[in-house]
Amino acid sequence: MPVGTRGTVKSLTPEDLYALGAEIILANTYHLWLRPGAEVVKAQGGLHRFMHWDRPLLTDSGGYQVFSLAQSSQVSEEGVTFQSHLDGSRHFLTPEKAIEVQEALGADIIMCLDECIPYPASDEYTREATERTVRWARRCQRAKMGTDQALFAVVQGGTSSELRRLCADQLVELDFPGYAVGGLSVGEPREAMVAAAGAVLPRLPAERPCYVMGLGAPEDLVDLVGLGADMFDCVLPTRSARTGQLFTKHGRMVIKNSRHQEEDAPIDEGCTCYTCRHYSRAYLRHLFLNKELLAYRLNTIHNLWYFLELMREMRRAIAAGTFGEFRGEFYRQRGHDSG
Amino acid sequence: MPVGTRGTVKSLTPEDLYALGAEIILANTYHLWLRPGAEVVKAQGGLHRFMHWDRPLLTDSGGYQVFSLAQSSQVSEEGVTFQSHLDGSRHFLTPEKAIEVQEALGADIIMCLDECIPYPASDEYTREATERTVRWARRCQRAKMGTDQALFAVVQGGTSSELRRLCADQLVELDFPGYAVGGLSVGEPREAMVAAAGAVLPRLPAERPCYVMGLGAPEDLVDLVGLGADMFDCVLPTRSARTGQLFTKHGRMVIKNSRHQEEDAPIDEGCTCYTCRHYSRAYLRHLFLNKELLAYRLNTIHNLWYFLELMREMRRAIAAGTFGEFRGEFYRQRGHDSG
Repeated sequence: MPVGTRGTVKSLTPEDLYALGAEIILANTYHLWLRPGAEVVKAQGGLHRFMHWDRPLLTDSGGYQVFSLAQSSQVSEEGVTFQSHLDGSRHFLTPEKAIEVQEALGADIIMCLDECIPYPASDEYTREATERTVRWARRCQRAKMGTDQALFAVVQGGTSSELRRLCADQLVELDFPGYAVGGLSVGEPREAMVAAAGAVLPRLPAERPCYVMGLGAPEDLVDLVGLGADMFDCVLPTRSARTGQLFTKHGRMVIKNSRHQEEDAPIDEGCTCYTCRHYSRAYLRHLFLNKELLAYRLNTIHNLWYFLELMREMRRAIAAGTFGEFRGEFYRQRGHDSG
Repeated sequence: MPVGTRGTVKSLTPEDLYALGAEIILANTYHLWLRPGAEVVKAQGGLHRFMHWDRPLLTDSGGYQVFSLAQSSQVSEEGVTFQSHLDGSRHFLTPEKAIEVQEALGADIIMCLDECIPYPASDEYTREATERTVRWARRCQRAKMGTDQALFAVVQGGTSSELRRLCADQLVELDFPGYAVGGLSVGEPREAMVAAAGAVLPRLPAERPCYVMGLGAPEDLVDLVGLGADMFDCVLPTRSARTGQLFTKHGRMVIKNSRHQEEDAPIDEGCTCYTCRHYSRAYLRHLFLNKELLAYRLNTIHNLWYFLELMREMRRAIAAGTFGEFRGEFYRQRGHDSG
């Protein structure tokens, strides 16, 4: 499950991530392109060497940040113009540029440039943007020079099951080594998100990786894996860690809560992560209240372990043919809240 | 060399510190007493268990923060009243209280309460405060209940060599297992600091640990070890790391300097720390400019390694009888600056 940004998973070293069993991380093309620059990373031997990470690495296309973080972005058939959120400088991101930058960065999995559709959006715009996303995917495929990177296409279509299916079918026709579902969790009701993912996932080839982008909560992971998703990326585990929200099998725990002041128990009695093996809630609360950098790191280790374990448990359940029981038990444990 | 605060060395785990070869860390009694409270730490099994640190641990007396950080502190023969910097609550720190709190925390080395003399200070006040520090040391010695903690006394005396010697002699008379020199580097010229330390260190028993508090720069360590100092504590390595100032054998390096933007070399070519083995200056600069938490950690690892290596090199030179040559070479290498 990729959970990185800007060329690091906040507060952790690669060795920390290996110890957690992380198999892949994500780095954001938009950030690295603007600073320090793709050519700087390339001159340093590529992103793996730059950030001292020797397992698989995925870069996104940069499109998501161009639509959500950059200023005055404007879409045309050719690509997107935007101004850097750092210094206001103007840039032009095309499908070809997205590939060029990602080839310079050198990740193992790279993504086609897609158009992120906000929620709500008109039917007409949603259709236009979805069709453009397919045309851009074809241009990305043609622009790709190297053979050592796997290029995944991104299914868009907003909350329209019809457009989602259409987009998926057209991209599968183009024969990519992996597929992603983008544009989910952008403000739509959860049922609409699940319905859109449910319209796409069964149409994607079962033997190729299916990656749902920008999700999610533990419940999202469980429900979407049930629909066929294989990979996710989300800031939730790391961002929550930094705000003192910790995940447990019973729900979320707020570490600054005064009930933890003298609590000798770890975050989660059954958890075997480094943080739970060595530190009490009382100590973690103390570090968090003092804004100690170590608080963010210990919390991040716990949350990532929680999410990675959740994925490992689902893999075991699928292999054993017991995913349905797993899902039932997962929701039963959430019956009571431990915050 | 103790370099901790509030029950953590900022951004590092105990395992990180073991890997650096750190043999002892310092925790601040003032901070822990006010939050989470000494009784909370004691109920958690003491400071070693609370912070998951199983090597030697030293606590200061709390006096330094009472004089430098707390509000409206007032000294009497009995002790110091002050208001917490956190919530303004009133507290009374006496020699007996300093011992009681440090016994509850449970460090291996604990410190006598001393009166920190500002610079400049009148001769009369300096004499009074120094004499009171000796009386307080005697009270600490009497108040101490346990036998598993080593109580060190602190030599004061401001910039007066006469008072420094007098204080040292009286404390040595009281027969402590170790001695510290306090009240240095509080604004006095460097020559006055070295002169004050030089007046004290030769009078302390050579077979007992001599600990110079609140220092220092690499030059301070080298010069004071030359005068007989064994231990130091200082925020300099960790605080500098967090502001992007890195120590090398040639001097200090400012990592955000644009000359490092495309620099593939590590901070210090000859350094074997984790950071220098795996990361270029270009990557460290990138992390620092992006305010990544990992920047503070990687910089902290490098700076602590630099200081711990410096101490290890001095130990080896002393054992080999070549400290004079070591010191000459140390200053020769600083001839040119690498920032």
